[in-house]
Amino acid sequence: MDASGTVQLKLDEKLHDLCDVPVESVIEVHGTVARRAPGAENPNMPTGQVEVLVHSWKLLNKADSLPFYPTQCIDEQNLPNEALRARHRYLDLRRPALGSAIRRRSHVSHAARTYLYNKGVLEIETPMLLRSTPEGAREFLVPTRTQGADPQFYALQQSPQQPKQLLMASGVTEAYYQLARCFRDEDGRRDRQPEFTQLDMEMSFVSGTGEPAAPGAHVWRIGGTEVRDLVEGLVHTMWKAADMGTALPARFPVMPYAYAMQTYGSDKPDLRFGLEISDLAPTLQSDSPFALDILVCPHHEFEKPLRLSAKQTSQLLLRKDGSRSSIEHFKASVADPPVDTILKKSRHVRSILGDAEPAGDFSGALAAAIKASSVFVRGKEAPEASRCDIFISLRPKAPEGGSTEMGDLRLALANALGEIRADVRDSSPHILWVTEFPLFTHADAEKDEAAHGRWSSSHHPFTAPLAEDIPVLLRALDEPDSAARQSAIASIHGQHFDLVLDGQEIGGGSVRIHDPTLQELVFRRVLELTDDETQRFGHLLKALRCGAPPHAGMALGFDRLMAILCGRQSIRDVIAFPKSTSGFDPLFRSPAALGESPDEAQGLLAPYRLKIDSFT
Amino acid sequence: MDASGTVQLKLDEKLHDLCDVPVESVIEVHGTVARRAPGAENPNMPTGQVEVLVHSWKLLNKADSLPFYPTQCIDEQNLPNEALRARHRYLDLRRPALGSAIRRRSHVSHAARTYLYNKGVLEIETPMLLRSTPEGAREFLVPTRTQGADPQFYALQQSPQQPKQLLMASGVTEAYYQLARCFRDEDGRRDRQPEFTQLDMEMSFVSGTGEPAAPGAHVWRIGGTEVRDLVEGLVHTMWKAADMGTALPARFPVMPYAYAMQTYGSDKPDLRFGLEISDLAPTLQSDSPFALDILVCPHHEFEKPLRLSAKQTSQLLLRKDGSRSSIEHFKASVADPPVDTILKKSRHVRSILGDAEPAGDFSGALAAAIKASSVFVRGKEAPEASRCDIFISLRPKAPEGGSTEMGDLRLALANALGEIRADVRDSSPHILWVTEFPLFTHADAEKDEAAHGRWSSSHHPFTAPLAEDIPVLLRALDEPDSAARQSAIASIHGQHFDLVLDGQEIGGGSVRIHDPTLQELVFRRVLELTDDETQRFGHLLKALRCGAPPHAGMALGFDRLMAILCGRQSIRDVIAFPKSTSGFDPLFRSPAALGESPDEAQGLLAPYRLKIDSFT
Repeated sequence: MDASGTVQLKLDEKLHDLCDVPVESVIEVHGTVARRAPGAENPNMPTGQVEVLVHSWKLLNKADSLPFYPTQCIDEQNLPNEALRARHRYLDLRRPALGSAIRRRSHVSHAARTYLYNKGVLEIETPMLLRSTPEGAREFLVPTRTQGADPQFYALQQSPQQPKQLLMASGVTEAYYQLARCFRDEDGRRDRQPEFTQLDMEMSFVSGTGEPAAPGAHVWRIGGTEVRDLVEGLVHTMWKAADMGTALPARFPVMPYAYAMQTYGSDKPDLRFGLEISDLAPTLQSDSPFALDILVCPHHEFEKPLRLSAKQTSQLLLRKDGSRSSIEHFKASVADPPVDTILKKSRHVRSILGDAEPAGDFSGALAAAIKASSVFVRGKEAPEASRCDIFISLRPKAPEGGSTEMGDLRLALANALGEIRADVRDSSPHILWVTEFPLFTHADAEKDEAAHGRWSSSHHPFTAPLAEDIPVLLRALDEPDSAARQSAIASIHGQHFDLVLDGQEIGGGSVRIHDPTLQELVFRRVLELTDDETQRFGHLLKALRCGAPPHAGMALGFDRLMAILCGRQSIRDVIAFPKSTSGFDPLFRSPAALGESPDEAQGLLAPYRLKIDSFT
Repeated sequence: MDASGTVQLKLDEKLHDLCDVPVESVIEVHGTVARRAPGAENPNMPTGQVEVLVHSWKLLNKADSLPFYPTQCIDEQNLPNEALRARHRYLDLRRPALGSAIRRRSHVSHAARTYLYNKGVLEIETPMLLRSTPEGAREFLVPTRTQGADPQFYALQQSPQQPKQLLMASGVTEAYYQLARCFRDEDGRRDRQPEFTQLDMEMSFVSGTGEPAAPGAHVWRIGGTEVRDLVEGLVHTMWKAADMGTALPARFPVMPYAYAMQTYGSDKPDLRFGLEISDLAPTLQSDSPFALDILVCPHHEFEKPLRLSAKQTSQLLLRKDGSRSSIEHFKASVADPPVDTILKKSRHVRSILGDAEPAGDFSGALAAAIKASSVFVRGKEAPEASRCDIFISLRPKAPEGGSTEMGDLRLALANALGEIRADVRDSSPHILWVTEFPLFTHADAEKDEAAHGRWSSSHHPFTAPLAEDIPVLLRALDEPDSAARQSAIASIHGQHFDLVLDGQEIGGGSVRIHDPTLQELVFRRVLELTDDETQRFGHLLKALRCGAPPHAGMALGFDRLMAILCGRQSIRDVIAFPKSTSGFDPLFRSPAALGESPDEAQGLLAPYRLKIDSFT
């Protein structure tokens, strides 16, 4: 066996000592390939029609007894202990499932590179050792010993965002790409790695507007259509190189962020299943700051009851097993306990209202909601539904952040349904663009803390506003009434786009601001950066003033995309030597403490010591 | 103008306000391409036969007045201030010479990738965050905040050496490559960067021996011929992609290290010029530990005198302007000052002998040397030489390190001659392999200090000895006499190979040790590593014991090779955003001190503080 597969050897009596060589040893064999005798073929083996008649063999390297035997690990449900496999990753990579994923990654990356090169997109390497920024909570700092007594730090890039924009400003090429290693110093929650790879792209001379259409239309209204075209072709190429056997749509559909949040409760909607969410806002007062989400989950003919965890049920306002008749019963039960009390259990209601009484006639609204919901019970989502669960949730009318309470519940419901019947998610891939995100936000807790009450950029401060929103922004900045001003700023859409595949964000990008005046206005008047903070973007502002063309770009999360293309749940399965979720590498045993010798460690730590001394 | 070039615009009277747009602004033009009127063609412009009749135009981004005007910077000898250009690198990249180098790099890297992919060599990414090692004087340490209270560090890779060997052990592929970013925390002497790119390769199932020949033959006697074949094809491919206009030899010649050191005084000999060095060792006693290097430099018909710096002349033992007759005068002058005194001025003599008197009859040897040198004066290197300089130097008989005193002088002479006549170096490329390096050394000052008197590996401890030297090594380890033992170990050749182009090392590699017993013997008995030190290679030893195939690999210095392929002196000219020789990035202004707020910095530095507290 080697990386290309296995073959049967046939031995002469006098070569039988080959059988004594331990399994997984490396041998060199000379022999003749022959067709197997009729009846001796092995239809389960790609080389099952032939065997090698061995003339001579040589032991190249003998294997000791091994901690586990990877080629015997066929059943993915019964693998040896994960920590043991991680420590001996070079053995684990001999498992056919893992080895083929690593090889597929190479085929896909080469197909991607060739596609981009043929489109005139140049590979350009940018620095990984960049500048540390005071607010870079998640960046790795890299002290250097060569810059004299004053301790100096690089920071490992979190993405090549600024270098690639400066490349566009330089005009050295009109299209750039890089399979860029990026770094983030955070716990590996959600299957993340401290170092990861993104397929990073940027193009200049892009259009600033897309298809003309009314707000809310499911078309590409933002600019950067050239990036869209390039990336759709790229993803098709990678899909084909991975030999997926399923088809992506020729063009990827577009969905505005507001629609995705309303209908799927997520900015990365999983369209492989229904369970769509309806807004019953019309049943609330028109000036209510809230929307009322309702989701009806048909039971079909379940054999088992639907199970949701305590966390999941805590998210739901109302849940009832209901036949058409029991909806009446459900309505009757609304009064006990009182609807207002139930509403107040909602995470969103609590976060919005605190302990104050909810405003508005919720009881009435809810009754109307339930009445309307019966339409859905009889709707196409559940034609045969005679029994159903009804879920209702309150949320702020303007959606914000990555998901709503109801969106999270929708995913939990799909998982729960999946345990009952396997076909809840469509097996064919569902890919789409999500566009028209709010440009500024208060919804990201981490950013919001760093911003000290100021607005944050939803993605980054270089994202251009939707062209038609620029006048709104300029008017907002002159608006004397603070609430009206904040509300107008919240309404600005960015020319940002995310690419979503089967409910996972596989990439994101935007049209950038190329007008230095607009960029400085965003820095100073919207984000209210201080002079010092603005100064840190001085080189970018200066570059925009030197004749920078309009530009836009995108990055695909290459590890995540490869995991999907290899049918793996974890990105660790498509990385040759991954780290654990806590960032630990069990093979190389890193990170590690420095050497035990105080002399040695003090030498290495001298810069820090100096810095710390200056504080005390 | 864009990255693809410039074109002449022709304006209607009513569009003449386009002329008011500042230079380097970005405009969008609609118009018709038309052939220029006869006589109006510009033969100096690629698009000089046509012009664009402008129908309409739009200002996309207006340029301010610029710190310098890159497209006017044609004369490389008279560029604007280097610091100014570095700070505005995005502008400097608009200089045609620089922009085309960056674009060529992309073309060459894609050609290299495609060549390798078509040869079945898979691109596999390996970790950049590796483990810190106590002796890693030049590695960047990366502290992480996610591993609890005890401070933990990754180290940025200096090369993917261990990961790629583990890949080969895994059998996931029989051939790997990666354009790998590597990091070294040292002053950027000799045109180095703290982050640099190497084209890294490794192959398994390689042969362990090469062409059978006597020691000293100019053939590939070591193993890993598969790597040699792959890399020769690769370099040909890159050479062609760079459109070099010159030809490399179909096969690259091979030269043993000992011959290169003897004849060129360098392990990266520049064969574009002669000035070969002869060994006059036969004139010394046969048991002398020294060799006597002589170099005869013909004057031809120099218009100017040969100039060497004080540093260079301090390296030379004897130098005389000499006609054939003046050689007699030179001989006569040998006695005054006494030869022994002159010899003692030599760096090598001093390092070997200290202040002790040199052994042997040097006066006699020297007279014989000078007699022999007259052969060279009449030799083919200087057929018409009636005048010449003669240089003589003493060195240890067994060459070690990267160059000899005479080798350094040879390069200085070539430069000095180049100032007199430009044709001293052949304009066609001279590439060769240097092989059969000593496997163990005391000549590397940095390594020697870390080894505390023990042997160091000339390259790294995973390099295999030449197959025929293994018995010598085994006997040496059982040799009771210390001097004999040391001398035997010094005589072991490694299966290492360097690729040298025009006197620059553009890559190096080796056949690795795949036998765990031999690897452990090298660690413990030759390098005399302690248990703790050996333990740091535990995962590699374990991998070799799990059935690892024979393997070999190489890395090409991609930045240096690209500089050659772009005809540039400095690697900074082929890197989009380089750092200065001191490691400073003038564009992003990194590295930098941390933020001024003590709170902030103390938070970031908390792990270091803890560690330091534990020492005091």
